[in-house]
Formats: sequence, C-alpha cells, structure tokens
Amino acid sequence: MRYLTAKLAQQIDEELMNSVGAFSLDQLMELAGLACAQTLATVYRKDVYPRVLVCCGPGNQGGDGLVAARHLSMFGYQPTVYMPKPGAKDIYQRLQKQCENMQIPIIMPPSNDIEDLRKVLRNSDVIMDAIFGFSFKPPIRAPFDAVLPFLNESRLPIVSVDIPSGWDVEEGNNFGVGLKADVLLSLTAPKQGVVDFMGRHFLGGRFVPKNIQEKFDLQLPPYPGSEQIVELASDKTPPKF
Amino acid sequence: MRYLTAKLAQQIDEELMNSVGAFSLDQLMELAGLACAQTLATVYRKDVYPRVLVCCGPGNQGGDGLVAARHLSMFGYQPTVYMPKPGAKDIYQRLQKQCENMQIPIIMPPSNDIEDLRKVLRNSDVIMDAIFGFSFKPPIRAPFDAVLPFLNESRLPIVSVDIPSGWDVEEGNNFGVGLKADVLLSLTAPKQGVVDFMGRHFLGGRFVPKNIQEKFDLQLPPYPGSEQIVELASDKTPPKF
Repeated sequence: MRYLTAKLAQQIDEELMNSVGAFSLDQLMELAGLACAQTLATVYRKDVYPRVLVCCGPGNQGGDGLVAARHLSMFGYQPTVYMPKPGAKDIYQRLQKQCENMQIPIIMPPSNDIEDLRKVLRNSDVIMDAIFGFSFKPPIRAPFDAVLPFLNESRLPIVSVDIPSGWDVEEGNNFGVGLKADVLLSLTAPKQGVVDFMGRHFLGGRFVPKNIQEKFDLQLPPYPGSEQIVELASDKTPPKF
Repeated sequence: MRYLTAKLAQQIDEELMNSVGAFSLDQLMELAGLACAQTLATVYRKDVYPRVLVCCGPGNQGGDGLVAARHLSMFGYQPTVYMPKPGAKDIYQRLQKQCENMQIPIIMPPSNDIEDLRKVLRNSDVIMDAIFGFSFKPPIRAPFDAVLPFLNESRLPIVSVDIPSGWDVEEGNNFGVGLKADVLLSLTAPKQGVVDFMGRHFLGGRFVPKNIQEKFDLQLPPYPGSEQIVELASDKTPPKF
C-alpha cells in the first residue's frame, strides 16, 4: 500500500472531482462521513460509549465530521458537534442544517469558549477528530491551538479522520503537539505522516475508480463484502477482530 | 410500519430536499444506491451471481441504479447497465460518467434493441430493477413495455428498488404486467402496492430525520448496528438469515 504525500492526496482529491472522476463533493463527503461513523461504531459500542463529541474544522474534513455526526445519530449514538470555527462553504451550512434536523446539539460561536469545551468533554465518552485533514500545514492556529491540548488532556478515546489533528501530514507527530489518537480512519489511502501510527487503523473511501487507483499506484487492500471500511493489519498492532 | 401512498412518498421526498430537510439529491441518491447494492450483495453472493444486469429508468430511480452499479463494481461484481432511455438531468450524466470510469459496460441508445437485451440477459446472473419508482403511473410506455416481459421471461432472479417496475404504486401488480421480483428494497418506507409482496423484503434509506419520521408517522423498524439496510420480517415470508 502506498502512503501518500500531502501533494499526492490533493491531486487524487482533485482528480476524483474533476471531469475525469466526475464525483460531486456531496457524494464523496457523504461516503467519507459514513465511513467515519462506521469506524467509530466498530470500535466503540454505543451502549458503552454513547456520547460522541464530534470536533469539526472549517474545511472539508469538518464536513465529513458533520456527516458522521448525522449517521452516528441514526445509529443511536448521542453526538454533539463542537465547531469553534464553522466553514464558509454552502455545503457546510447544509450539513449543519441536517444535523440540526436530527436535534444534534452544536457548540459554535459565540458559545464556544474553553469553558464550553471543558463542560462538554466531561459529558462525552469518545471524541471524533475531524478538525484538520490532509491540507493542514503547521503551525496550529487559533482557536485550535487551545483546543487540541484540552482534547488530549481529557483522556477520552480519540478517533481521528485521515490524520490526527496537529500532526504534519508527511512528518507525523514530530513536535508532539498533535492529538493522541487511539483509532485512525485513513480516507482513500493513508498519508505518509501515519506510517508509524500505533493504534487501530482503518481505511475508508471505497470510491476510488480502478483507473485512478492505477494512475497513482495506490495498491489498496481488498475491502470485505459490501463494507465501506477495512481494518488494516500492521506489524505493530495485530488486528483485533 | 406505515405503507405509503404515491402522494405521501412524493411529499416525504420533497421534504427531505427542501429547506426543511436540506439534503441534496446527490446525497440521497448516493445512500439509496449504496443500499440497493448492499441488498443485492446480501442475497446474491458474488461468487455465484457475479454478473448483474442493472436496468435503469430515466428518472431518479435510474440514478439510484447507476450509483448501485458503481458500488457493485467496487464490491467485486461485474455489473452491466441497461439504460434504454437515459435521463436528462445533469446528475444522471455525472453518474453515468462515474460508471464509465469504473469500466462498467453501458447498453444505451442507439445500441439497445431487444436483441442487445436478449444477448446481455443470457450473460447475466441476476437483475437489478431500477426502472420505475414511486412516481410511476400506468400504462407502461415504450421502450419499457417491451423490456419488462423479457426480464420476466429470463427467469433470472430480480431485485427491485422501491416498487417492482410495472406495479401500480398503490394497487400492486393487479394487471399482472409488472416484474416478478424475488427481492424488494423499499426506500424510506414501503409503498402500499407492496403490502402483499411475497419475497424477501428489505428497507433502506437510513437518512430520514426524526422530525420527518414523526410528521409522517412512519413507524420505521430499527436498523441493526451501522447497517444501511434492514430485512423486514413478515407473516408471509419468515426472514431467512
């Protein structure tokens, strides 16, 4: 399997949505967000970990998070969205509205100071980290520079999407300021920064056509049956089925 | 569980996509098509039934079919799309392009006469019927009036989406001209016409917010885990797990 640079991840994303791939952002985000929700549900049972804090950044990964929150609610979890910097795109507003329709609480400006975060963390069982994706470049900017340490200090289990937030997409958690993720869902293909990730590692984004897989030599593993995620085996962490 | 009239199904569909529901057609079609593919994969194993003929109508259900064909290809099936009357909407063209990217053969005008259909039926193991949906009103118009009898005469198993094509959405297969479906996937909620359906019956479309479920008193059954489909039990046909 090929571990992608940030540039390559960007190229594949563009290819999926340009005239070659012909996918809409709505489609890809829906499938990605569903895979996020299914990954969390695979590892953290809803009877033990019902309260999920879904932390969303302002970019496309925040959109994945909003989709995931909606599906988690359909699965019977009690998600809360924490969104200190809402995205500007139209799709972001629509996904937020869909969460509101599911009666999912959303913590956002102006009610999103650290005290709000502290309070909601006390009432959460697991965190979904959909803050930064493969286009993240250090340094970590406000308000997230204050948020990430709080998430780590909560000691709640963390499910990260694509790259744990604060990690360099290619270099990993070299500076130690990134989230200590327990579970990772790589989308499309894993990024170079997670090559030494030690937790349970899943792959999602089962939508890359053969021609794009081959063009970028992705060497993706087979997914089981009609599942949207596959757990990756690793020398470091044998898969726990 | 409530069995819907055609009018009610239409109202729910509109509500999902208007300012209340805020869903885009891309999102709903992606989830519906995924549920179609997963239903077929649940009943017809790919090692025994690899070759799936996905028959698409010109409306939104044809779009579900194109999405399903793409996911079936990702699952390792060998789908062929039969589309004697392609839809006009932009989304239809994009979904078709996505199938082409997966190297899925598409039989469409001008190469779609009955001889082409006969030939592809001889090389198929199972049919997915995504021709007519809940907005169908009799009579069956060309070219589908000639197509449906051929599908029935093939004696291949048929998986129908929402309502077997040719059935009245409320009255069922009263005139006997509809498809003899073996498996049915109802989307959102079942329609009145299938209340006496005798085959295996699944429900999909796990995206209806609580407020819309309550407004229309849908009384939907619980879905298992993070699945996108649920098999409905029935007095007539005990579920075969």
